[in-house]
Amino acid sequence: MTTNRMALVLGVGPIQGLGAALARRFAAEGLPVVIAGRSSAKLALVADAIADAGGMAIPVVADATNESDVKRLFETASAGGRILDIAAYNVDSNLAAPLLETDLAMFTTLWQQNSLGAFLFGREAVKHMLPQQQGSLFFTGATASLRAKPPFTAFAAAKAAVRALAQGMAREFGPQGIHVVHAIIDGVINGERAHRQFSRFVAAKGADGLLNLEAIAQTYWAVHQQHPSAWTHELDLRPFKEPF
Amino acid sequence: MTTNRMALVLGVGPIQGLGAALARRFAAEGLPVVIAGRSSAKLALVADAIADAGGMAIPVVADATNESDVKRLFETASAGGRILDIAAYNVDSNLAAPLLETDLAMFTTLWQQNSLGAFLFGREAVKHMLPQQQGSLFFTGATASLRAKPPFTAFAAAKAAVRALAQGMAREFGPQGIHVVHAIIDGVINGERAHRQFSRFVAAKGADGLLNLEAIAQTYWAVHQQHPSAWTHELDLRPFKEPF
Amino acid sequence: MTTNRMALVLGVGPIQGLGAALARRFAAEGLPVVIAGRSSAKLALVADAIADAGGMAIPVVADATNESDVKRLFETASAGGRILDIAAYNVDSNLAAPLLETDLAMFTTLWQQNSLGAFLFGREAVKHMLPQQQGSLFFTGATASLRAKPPFTAFAAAKAAVRALAQGMAREFGPQGIHVVHAIIDGVINGERAHRQFSRFVAAKGADGLLNLEAIAQTYWAVHQQHPSAWTHELDLRPFKEPF
Amino acid sequence: MTTNRMALVLGVGPIQGLGAALARRFAAEGLPVVIAGRSSAKLALVADAIADAGGMAIPVVADATNESDVKRLFETASAGGRILDIAAYNVDSNLAAPLLETDLAMFTTLWQQNSLGAFLFGREAVKHMLPQQQGSLFFTGATASLRAKPPFTAFAAAKAAVRALAQGMAREFGPQGIHVVHAIIDGVINGERAHRQFSRFVAAKGADGLLNLEAIAQTYWAVHQQHPSAWTHELDLRPFKEPF
Repeated sequence: MTTNRMALVLGVGPIQGLGAALARRFAAEGLPVVIAGRSSAKLALVADAIADAGGMAIPVVADATNESDVKRLFETASAGGRILDIAAYNVDSNLAAPLLETDLAMFTTLWQQNSLGAFLFGREAVKHMLPQQQGSLFFTGATASLRAKPPFTAFAAAKAAVRALAQGMAREFGPQGIHVVHAIIDGVINGERAHRQFSRFVAAKGADGLLNLEAIAQTYWAVHQQHPSAWTHELDLRPFKEPF
Repeated sequence: MTTNRMALVLGVGPIQGLGAALARRFAAEGLPVVIAGRSSAKLALVADAIADAGGMAIPVVADATNESDVKRLFETASAGGRILDIAAYNVDSNLAAPLLETDLAMFTTLWQQNSLGAFLFGREAVKHMLPQQQGSLFFTGATASLRAKPPFTAFAAAKAAVRALAQGMAREFGPQGIHVVHAIIDGVINGERAHRQFSRFVAAKGADGLLNLEAIAQTYWAVHQQHPSAWTHELDLRPFKEPF
Repeated sequence: MTTNRMALVLGVGPIQGLGAALARRFAAEGLPVVIAGRSSAKLALVADAIADAGGMAIPVVADATNESDVKRLFETASAGGRILDIAAYNVDSNLAAPLLETDLAMFTTLWQQNSLGAFLFGREAVKHMLPQQQGSLFFTGATASLRAKPPFTAFAAAKAAVRALAQGMAREFGPQGIHVVHAIIDGVINGERAHRQFSRFVAAKGADGLLNLEAIAQTYWAVHQQHPSAWTHELDLRPFKEPF
Repeated sequence: MTTNRMALVLGVGPIQGLGAALARRFAAEGLPVVIAGRSSAKLALVADAIADAGGMAIPVVADATNESDVKRLFETASAGGRILDIAAYNVDSNLAAPLLETDLAMFTTLWQQNSLGAFLFGREAVKHMLPQQQGSLFFTGATASLRAKPPFTAFAAAKAAVRALAQGMAREFGPQGIHVVHAIIDGVINGERAHRQFSRFVAAKGADGLLNLEAIAQTYWAVHQQHPSAWTHELDLRPFKEPF
């Protein structure tokens, strides 16, 4: 297990969330992980959980929409000449509203957190990965990445932009050894947010009706492990019983 | 010919441009047209050309990314209780750059002019059209709306967002009588910009190798004329000899 | 009105059907129309209706899946050195079944009538149109052309093949002057079939909730009229109130 | 390692081919594998190689387009009450031709081998897997599954049908526990066929420029291993340096 390799996850919130699950998984594979998000309290909990499991996490409070925050993240991750093996942009900022109730601030915020943040993150990731001629760069997508439906039109516009960004980056940087992946989460994640926001829905879904956090993280890891001769750029992930 | 109907085109620049061609066509069909863009000089030329052809144009200098400008546009168009028959968002702001040379300002500008402007325009259009229970709302798309390729990744992200916006709006407002259309211009328009920026390319394309302005405008008009029982939401437009 | 131009529609059934509506429309534009289908009685009724309206129709009984029938159709249409202006493949053979109740015969029949027929028709159309360096070739698609859902999986497989065929042909023959169009009918057509098969559904849809035959035909005609510098290859057609 | 579980691969040809690679991989994971194809000589070589590696293979000569052959395959695989864990339809019959040189026989053959065979295989797989309430069903797709380009239009029509079939089956049988996967192979496989048919191209591609057989098989296995709460239905696989 190489110790000079690193992972970086931006968009780490509650322990029962995808960002934390990805970080835990990467740490379990022996990679020290920079975990970044807006809440130092949540980051601390995740870092503790990773440490308890024998891994190593470096929490960094960062705003995905802030260019210098994002740059600093990557500097932290690559400090000491470490190889940045994986960078995952896992910010998923969603707001629902009929279009006529969507104001300039909301439309802008959704774009900033989903699209602009993805751009800043992706660009810095590539800057650090190109000299290495390797590295996996993940963007977490959603159902709305492919289809815009009210009341998620503004969210869909932001996620469609992320998908285009990931596709253009895959075309530009794949041939230089950077594995750019767009993972479309098509369903509800069995995490803290779902339980808090719509507990009845969660109950109705039943066993395996929601996306299991570890199951998602497992696929991210499997895609990261792919040989360069057979890379996946885009894949969907959905509970077996989810209509689509 | 009804005189209480109006058209509105945002993104009117040179006379040999798509915005002007759309405005001329709507005016030729008897609709007074509010034409909006950033250059009062260019708007004046287009307005004169429309007047010379027997039509009526109301030039309004407006910045598509400025909410109050956009609101004002629609107030002008619907002043006196006029019916807003057509609103076309024709802003197409394109910049090419490798991703590592794409800075925060450029990524933001492309989003503002293409996506944010489309949102503001679309939302105001719907506000004015819903009470009428009718109206056609056009968004001009591009090849990049469907595919992201370097050096157009940032542009593609912005145009993909517009496509999602148009799709979500069609789903939300179609059943209320608003015809939302996303027209994908897949090729180079035979207009002022192409002649100025890449004249050799234009020459090499030969006859009908570039998109004819009047031909595009004709299809916009035909789609506007569609009966509500058989509406088109999305269509491509490309020169017959264009590879795709 | 040029008299040496012809249209050809394969898949003409009841008068209240899309094939008949297309034929009537082309005839109303002054084009003699070869109308082809499996029932001579139905063809006779359509031919009479066209004649009553002052047009000219030549009924030909033909099986879309029979190569010599299809060849003969085109020979009839181009007899006397006439220009084949429009050829429309309008066969839409649909059967619903859970996959486990889909047998070899049903899967094969759906392919033959939808896909194989489209191939034979398209190939013969191109043979006749290439020497003219012009002509519009329409394929009528369906919701299932883009999305496969039970109990329409076998139908969707057949329609997806037609879409691919149309796309490949557009790429191959567009630059040679043949306008290949794939029109996706996303909704129920207000025709004889709907009224016979699901009259309650028709009633529930209300005004303009089903696709109007003349409205569809109008768009086919508008697309046929497009200038070669701005052709549409694919478009959807759906009632304004249809969810999608 | 459970011994009452089986795998089945249809479309096994040369040892340096994808069918053989999938079979070898499944066998290496401890699953006895029914390997099926048209050449008993090739099947024997693959069976020997699997046996040499300590696995177990049961060769069955079968024609994918023959319903009773396909039924028999599944009876063989499930004989003795074994659980059919994986069934992979790997037939990839490709012929290139300009459309005007595509004859009825060629169009039909491509459909039979790619689409009809996939339907027969998929239906029988589901019949055997439903009582188990588990099983992974793979369809191997190609670039042409998504895009039709001459001279591959007929091939694309056949592969688009397979994609629709897989999608409809995923929607119908996913909720019943069958994991239906469509893997889009977007590039040239580094196998016997490529070396025989276009050796210069292979040389020009360089290291990892072609899809590595074991790398593809690894991803099939990883997708098979996915937890039902986070299944992938569709993914692409392409060499890192492949333009797309």
